[in-house]
Amino acid sequence: MITITLPDGAKKKFDSGVTPMDVAMSISEGLARNVISANVNGKKVETVTPITEDADLVLYTWREKEGKEAFWHSSAHVLAQTLEHLYPGVKLTIGPAIDNGFYYDIDLPDGKTITDADFDKIEKLFLEFARQKFEFKMKEVSKADALQYYKEKGNEYKVELIENLTDGDITFCDHADFTDLCRGGHIPNTGFIKAVKIMNVAGAYWRGDETKPQLTRVYGISFPKDKELKEYLEMLEEAKKRDHRKLGKELELFTFSQRVGQGLPLWLPKGTDLRKRLESFLQKQQVEAGYEMVITPHIGSKELYETSGHYAKYGKDSFQPIDTPHEGEEFLLKPMNCPHHCEIYKFKPRSYKDLPVRLAEFGTVYRYEQSGELHGLTRVRGFTQDDAHIFCRPDQVKEEFVKVMDLVLYVLNALKFTEFTAQISLRDPENKEKYIGSEENWEKAERAIIEAVAERDIETVTEYGEAAFYGPKLDFMVKDALGRSWQLGTVQVDYNLPERFELEYVGSDNQKHTPVMIHRAPFGSMERFVAVLLEHCAGKFPLWLTPDQVAILPVSEKYNDHAKKLSNILKNYDLRALVDERNEKVGKKIRDTEVNKVPYMVIVGEKEMESGKLSVRKQGEGDLGTFSIEEFAKIIQDDIEADLKLN
Amino acid sequence: MITITLPDGAKKKFDSGVTPMDVAMSISEGLARNVISANVNGKKVETVTPITEDADLVLYTWREKEGKEAFWHSSAHVLAQTLEHLYPGVKLTIGPAIDNGFYYDIDLPDGKTITDADFDKIEKLFLEFARQKFEFKMKEVSKADALQYYKEKGNEYKVELIENLTDGDITFCDHADFTDLCRGGHIPNTGFIKAVKIMNVAGAYWRGDETKPQLTRVYGISFPKDKELKEYLEMLEEAKKRDHRKLGKELELFTFSQRVGQGLPLWLPKGTDLRKRLESFLQKQQVEAGYEMVITPHIGSKELYETSGHYAKYGKDSFQPIDTPHEGEEFLLKPMNCPHHCEIYKFKPRSYKDLPVRLAEFGTVYRYEQSGELHGLTRVRGFTQDDAHIFCRPDQVKEEFVKVMDLVLYVLNALKFTEFTAQISLRDPENKEKYIGSEENWEKAERAIIEAVAERDIETVTEYGEAAFYGPKLDFMVKDALGRSWQLGTVQVDYNLPERFELEYVGSDNQKHTPVMIHRAPFGSMERFVAVLLEHCAGKFPLWLTPDQVAILPVSEKYNDHAKKLSNILKNYDLRALVDERNEKVGKKIRDTEVNKVPYMVIVGEKEMESGKLSVRKQGEGDLGTFSIEEFAKIIQDDIEADLKLN
Repeated sequence: MITITLPDGAKKKFDSGVTPMDVAMSISEGLARNVISANVNGKKVETVTPITEDADLVLYTWREKEGKEAFWHSSAHVLAQTLEHLYPGVKLTIGPAIDNGFYYDIDLPDGKTITDADFDKIEKLFLEFARQKFEFKMKEVSKADALQYYKEKGNEYKVELIENLTDGDITFCDHADFTDLCRGGHIPNTGFIKAVKIMNVAGAYWRGDETKPQLTRVYGISFPKDKELKEYLEMLEEAKKRDHRKLGKELELFTFSQRVGQGLPLWLPKGTDLRKRLESFLQKQQVEAGYEMVITPHIGSKELYETSGHYAKYGKDSFQPIDTPHEGEEFLLKPMNCPHHCEIYKFKPRSYKDLPVRLAEFGTVYRYEQSGELHGLTRVRGFTQDDAHIFCRPDQVKEEFVKVMDLVLYVLNALKFTEFTAQISLRDPENKEKYIGSEENWEKAERAIIEAVAERDIETVTEYGEAAFYGPKLDFMVKDALGRSWQLGTVQVDYNLPERFELEYVGSDNQKHTPVMIHRAPFGSMERFVAVLLEHCAGKFPLWLTPDQVAILPVSEKYNDHAKKLSNILKNYDLRALVDERNEKVGKKIRDTEVNKVPYMVIVGEKEMESGKLSVRKQGEGDLGTFSIEEFAKIIQDDIEADLKLN
Repeated sequence: MITITLPDGAKKKFDSGVTPMDVAMSISEGLARNVISANVNGKKVETVTPITEDADLVLYTWREKEGKEAFWHSSAHVLAQTLEHLYPGVKLTIGPAIDNGFYYDIDLPDGKTITDADFDKIEKLFLEFARQKFEFKMKEVSKADALQYYKEKGNEYKVELIENLTDGDITFCDHADFTDLCRGGHIPNTGFIKAVKIMNVAGAYWRGDETKPQLTRVYGISFPKDKELKEYLEMLEEAKKRDHRKLGKELELFTFSQRVGQGLPLWLPKGTDLRKRLESFLQKQQVEAGYEMVITPHIGSKELYETSGHYAKYGKDSFQPIDTPHEGEEFLLKPMNCPHHCEIYKFKPRSYKDLPVRLAEFGTVYRYEQSGELHGLTRVRGFTQDDAHIFCRPDQVKEEFVKVMDLVLYVLNALKFTEFTAQISLRDPENKEKYIGSEENWEKAERAIIEAVAERDIETVTEYGEAAFYGPKLDFMVKDALGRSWQLGTVQVDYNLPERFELEYVGSDNQKHTPVMIHRAPFGSMERFVAVLLEHCAGKFPLWLTPDQVAILPVSEKYNDHAKKLSNILKNYDLRALVDERNEKVGKKIRDTEVNKVPYMVIVGEKEMESGKLSVRKQGEGDLGTFSIEEFAKIIQDDIEADLKLN
């Protein structure tokens, strides 16, 4: 008999040779139907792999990322099988699961190509194979046999892969008539795959090396249900419409210029207005939470970054040092605000009573990214962090974490993000020696984070071994309206920088102590945050934040002056209104305003000018009726207060 | 007979050989008494130099900068005379007038030094000579005679100077027993100097070259009246107290860190708060005046600055280009915001109806300064301009200038600067070919500036030949509370950049035209402006701007909670209050608050807690009496409105 320990700590006894699927069945038939992958003692296995010793077992379904990985890895096998049937003589290379689906890189026989027109044919044959519920069977192969197999097939790619493997560690996976070199981790059989879509073909070099042969990469995605594929494709369609690069252009929020440089956004007036409003909002929340704002330069001497250790870390892959006319003097474009904030902490002596000192800055930093990695506002070379550094006593860490969480939850709520998760990253308990800082402080900090998160109702994942060497951390992720997860920012405890900068405070014992430092940029950067927000709300920002809250639409040029007067009156109510003075039909003005997502429209014609009343439309909803200016202002203000839950 | 033309255009006839002093006498005896220097046909002359041809004549008194220059240049002669008497064998080198006074660099005989203790003796003998009304007499000397004179005196410095002069162009100036190599421009006689003060001695290398002998530099200042010296010394004393570096430290507004880098200010919380409030205020005025805010990165590709011409201009004396891991890719730390704003202008097509486009940014720029040139916040290596670029049609230049002037006057007024002057810089009418842009546009722009300034009641100086090659400009200067002038920012017309960036708009004729660009940063930079403001108001900022408007002072710790409640109530009235929770006597709290310049104090004790009333003191004025919270808030709000002249 062996003992199987499940993730909730439950222990069960089984005969040696029991499979993960057997264990699932022993728990419930429903679970067994859904189990598609498993992990035994930290190692990925098949659901039919016999277990022959006491073991920790995790069972995965489609809902877990490990389940999806097994699903898509298995799908890559079926794709390869399909391609071998459709393109005899094709040479397979590698075919991994990726974030959304899988691909296979293949070397097509001379003269053959795959185009969009072939996708349908590939999908059809793929599903035909899938429906036959072929089982995936792993088998060990000697290096000699493995090499011989692929040499006979004339596949120099697999031969090259196998040559780099160790004899005894080589496995093949068979299903039906298909065999592939494979490390394992499959779903029970191909029948689990109910839907597939070939997404794309692209060129890719063997091993990513431009000097090597160019292969054809076939991308696909598969699902356990037809409905899920349909939803996924709809989501992609919607995501395309919401692409922040497209919306940013349409709404004139930001632009890029080749001449200024790739990855360096230029914020246009409407985008600047929006960003500044967002910064004011964040700043107000922070000041109320006891933060103090500072402003620091965008460069620092090389010595500053040698002290902090950033110079050694960023080095050659980064923007290079800036020389000056003074020989030997060097500056660096700042990649982080923390060294500057440490110097501000040091400008005067601090006592335990002064702590925590919370220094906040919308600090613009510059980090080099390869041009191929750049993407709209989410991957840039210059960005503005909603940064702050909290210098506190070890006993204040938990309270500071709770406060940061409260701030984050309030802000996400005000921006209509309702689904978010937090990841707690702790030390690897097996390798405590690789972390700096005392055992006592680590204990305190890790417990503080765990307890702080537990005090707030938020979905949490805990990862051991993911802490930085200088302290544990907490990361925030949000789900947007399309269900996509976005990594936002981090709250990071740090024992390292305070030592490197020799930061001190005088304790109640009159002795000098080193403060703990907490880095926190919970929204990551203004650039990324605005991009996520744009895609989340499809450009229809919350009313309090949107650049123009009201579009005043005169029915003819005759009413432009009256419209401008109205816009000034609304300004007195702290409302932002634009006047569409173009010589266009009001129908066109309404249609254009709908596209530009201005939340409210006020139509101004003869009747409205005489009565002094406003004819109001709401974007996406149509006519609301006629109101006095006071009534209309009240409608908007109530909407805003509801969003911000003021008071 | 010759014709003398005076600056107001008046023409007078005189016999040839008439002197400037004779002309002054012919105008009025009072003028003659005050004339201390003159300029004939653009050349500096003595008041006794005979005029032998038709000439333009300008007469200077102590009030003009040219008059002061002659006064202090003459004083340097008297100082040299004095030093020759007191330190026989001293070798004179050079001794110019400077902004405030004059100096003489001397090589003292071996073993001799000058210290503070000698100043009194020097001043006494100086005045003794002055009182004797020695006349300054210029005489031409041949190069050979000049060299012989100084060789005999053993003065290798003057010999070196003379060797570099052209024979025929060499003059000496005698007064009493003293002779000096001199180009001229003196007051009539030494008797005009009624007061002198030796300010300082310092080391200085001959010709500023560290490899050459070290000399002794003696600084002095002199005045036509005793009273003026007294006022000057009082002003210096007051200026020392108001030094923004000293106040900035005391009020915790900003700091510097050697490790971050010289000349790179770190704005502390109170300074950041102040600066952000000032920026908000400026931004609000600008947005109301039709400006649109933008945000651009702090770097740009080298190509951007090659296009703008800045790279060629800044080159070797500046921060050097930033390399990246990508070979051949180079960026520059931005020295100017204009290239970025040009790229924003270009992001979409513009029509004549869209102009003017006014793009504003609090843009932080970096310009290298030698470390010896750095000074607090007034001379830094990184600073934030209150920058904007107006892209307009040629016919809009005047209106835009009027608007900029109105903005500047409003803001200066709100900051209690009541004295300011403007300098208009126009083309050199004799050298029109060295300017770019059409004659028609220059005419239009120059006239626009002159007319715009004339429409507002502001003291103006017009300088011909001071325009940039790419357009005329307007500079602003303010006088601070000590009467010192500070150069602020500039409004500059530019025909060059729009062409370099190929900016366009479609005119009413449906043709493409090039817009005119106006650069404007009327306050220069936030750093400099805050420094000037600090020295102007001696740290006692206008109520609307000051970091803490109210200090709440509990008479004992028992009342701290009540004090904090009051501070929150005041926040609801948009007032900023700090609570002095220290365990100190209230007398000390009041004294400290006076030093920190918090404008209002509210004392909280038993009586106040029971009555709910506030006991209010005003900084520098003492007890104001007892008020309800509403009454107190009204007092402050009225003060602020009066400052800002809000409706």
